[in-house]
Amino acid sequence: MTGKPTLVSLARELGVSRQTVSNAINAPDRVNPTTLARVRAAIDQSGYRPSRAGRQLRTRRSMNLAMRLYPATDGINGSVLDRFLHSLTDAAQRLGYRLTLFTAADDAGEIAAIDELLSTVDIDGFVLTGTHREDIRTAWLLRHDVPFVCFGRPWSTSDDPYDAPHPWVDVDGAASTAEATRLLLDRGHDRIGFLGWPAGSGVGDDRRDGWLRTVRLAGSADTDVDQLSVRVTDSVANGAVGGRELFSRGATAVVCASDSLALGAFTAWRQSGADLSVGPAVIGFDDTPMAAAIGLSSVRQPIERAAAHAVDVLHHRLSDGAADEAPEPHLLLASTLVIRQTDPFLTSGEPASVRSAGIETHKEKVT
Amino acid sequence: MTGKPTLVSLARELGVSRQTVSNAINAPDRVNPTTLARVRAAIDQSGYRPSRAGRQLRTRRSMNLAMRLYPATDGINGSVLDRFLHSLTDAAQRLGYRLTLFTAADDAGEIAAIDELLSTVDIDGFVLTGTHREDIRTAWLLRHDVPFVCFGRPWSTSDDPYDAPHPWVDVDGAASTAEATRLLLDRGHDRIGFLGWPAGSGVGDDRRDGWLRTVRLAGSADTDVDQLSVRVTDSVANGAVGGRELFSRGATAVVCASDSLALGAFTAWRQSGADLSVGPAVIGFDDTPMAAAIGLSSVRQPIERAAAHAVDVLHHRLSDGAADEAPEPHLLLASTLVIRQTDPFLTSGEPASVRSAGIETHKEKVT
Repeated sequence: MTGKPTLVSLARELGVSRQTVSNAINAPDRVNPTTLARVRAAIDQSGYRPSRAGRQLRTRRSMNLAMRLYPATDGINGSVLDRFLHSLTDAAQRLGYRLTLFTAADDAGEIAAIDELLSTVDIDGFVLTGTHREDIRTAWLLRHDVPFVCFGRPWSTSDDPYDAPHPWVDVDGAASTAEATRLLLDRGHDRIGFLGWPAGSGVGDDRRDGWLRTVRLAGSADTDVDQLSVRVTDSVANGAVGGRELFSRGATAVVCASDSLALGAFTAWRQSGADLSVGPAVIGFDDTPMAAAIGLSSVRQPIERAAAHAVDVLHHRLSDGAADEAPEPHLLLASTLVIRQTDPFLTSGEPASVRSAGIETHKEKVT
Repeated sequence: MTGKPTLVSLARELGVSRQTVSNAINAPDRVNPTTLARVRAAIDQSGYRPSRAGRQLRTRRSMNLAMRLYPATDGINGSVLDRFLHSLTDAAQRLGYRLTLFTAADDAGEIAAIDELLSTVDIDGFVLTGTHREDIRTAWLLRHDVPFVCFGRPWSTSDDPYDAPHPWVDVDGAASTAEATRLLLDRGHDRIGFLGWPAGSGVGDDRRDGWLRTVRLAGSADTDVDQLSVRVTDSVANGAVGGRELFSRGATAVVCASDSLALGAFTAWRQSGADLSVGPAVIGFDDTPMAAAIGLSSVRQPIERAAAHAVDVLHHRLSDGAADEAPEPHLLLASTLVIRQTDPFLTSGEPASVRSAGIETHKEKVT
């Protein structure tokens, strides 16, 4: 199909099986001598060169990247990682790499899987997702000099992520929730709550920080701030409980750490007796298909750019690229706030009319 | 981590780099002779055996399966293939296989990519999705004796899929829409519409057939059937247009070929002035997170079983399993109809209260 000779095209041309051509290259003792001579001659004439072997001789690379695939979740929160996977596969293929998937029960299991993959299928580099505080994976990979990049910054409480000894690309969650909070302030809300995850999650605390600094700047007292922050584990049902609690404490609008929480808070808001015509009073995170479907405003991460950058970083290292052409080792991307009219079912007659605010909430920090 | 020696554990033990151990095995000329002798001795003592090479010698297998990843869609319809990918990765890993992803623009591109993968990274077998009429991929794979399995039956209009010369696993769409239609009949609806895709898609026509045979059995005349079927390309917006058309023609309920169409039809139903208390009058397909979020009833495919079966079929062929233990080469699975109360925002106070009907719509056909 591609014009250049392949194992399959050679087999077709010679009228032998694919396995025979493969054996002629890798296990000549399995091929009868006459056929072997004929296949070898054809291979020499055709210029066919088994690409993996050729590549490995030239570059010692397998052209394989690998990533752990986390279990499917409720399909709301997890969908952002599926978007990342699609983008990563595309970006990898554009540079000639394939992406191999594996699963693991926890970080130790992921390290064991990486260890085995390095011994067995010759992976050039790894993409880590779900970074968190005290992440044992990055230390292990550094110690063994395994090329990798993180989607997610290291969440150390003591060290500057821009000093990290490994590359990462991430999205600025705090800037995103700050922008969402400012939108609600601009619309006249003065008691804006935050619905987030239990303390200790780097990603969750970062998203809460953006809300916190914005309501403080706007003059909220510490007592108000305590009142207007609720933390629950991530689910739609918990979002409804947390949302009801916040509205009962006098919040008129809520910024959420995820779209799962936002969906729950949204149902609570609709039942709170609030004036539904004031525009979006609940803002989610990750702009999932669910948010689009019900007309919920949400923060959209630039997943495609993050994935492309992760592949660029690995490719540069693997191909021994020039130092002065190295992609940013530590890159924090800005997100976009997608503002929608809520209530698509009852008012507009159209599902989820979407307009993108295109707000760049944060300039990329380039070190 | 795993107890048995690996490339990484050997390097650690010897105080040399991973690359040095790898070179000692694959490129001894790159290692200085003293180190080489020491590493080789340690390898011999440890019983370490590079697994890929070992496996290939024993079985000539790479333990790699591969699948084309289609571009991300609106996140509603495409999400069922993401669920399949998660399940497939899990099932593959349980049997010791990894899953490699690639992308392609069309069927010819997929064949070219498979051709290249066979020559370069030594893939044992392929999983095809998105089967359709006149599918050039299966003929090519058969001709070149490449192990593969389809998620989706061959949609030939002339040949019995149970006579297909290759294995497939699929879900019985017609039985699913028939069951959905019967549910609406039981609830007293006598003008039930079908909102589907343009004619010619095997999957779409199959889903329409289940509705068609059920309304005919219930006594609908041919003129009614024509009136109550609308075909549009898949999108939420088209679902709204198609839904409005069906309700304007007197439909009181609609069965849909997808959740994207169902979301559109659902908005149309809510605006149609219908009595919302009668229970679900729109039923979708694929039970996406969006359907759960808004309380839409939908058909749930047994994706996990389909993925596990696909891997079993490939594994049996690749491991030269006994013929009398072969998994079904052609397996049609039953789906489940997930019935929900619509209108979670205004009435129940809870998001998407879900109860699974657990209706097995069809016994598996075992040939």
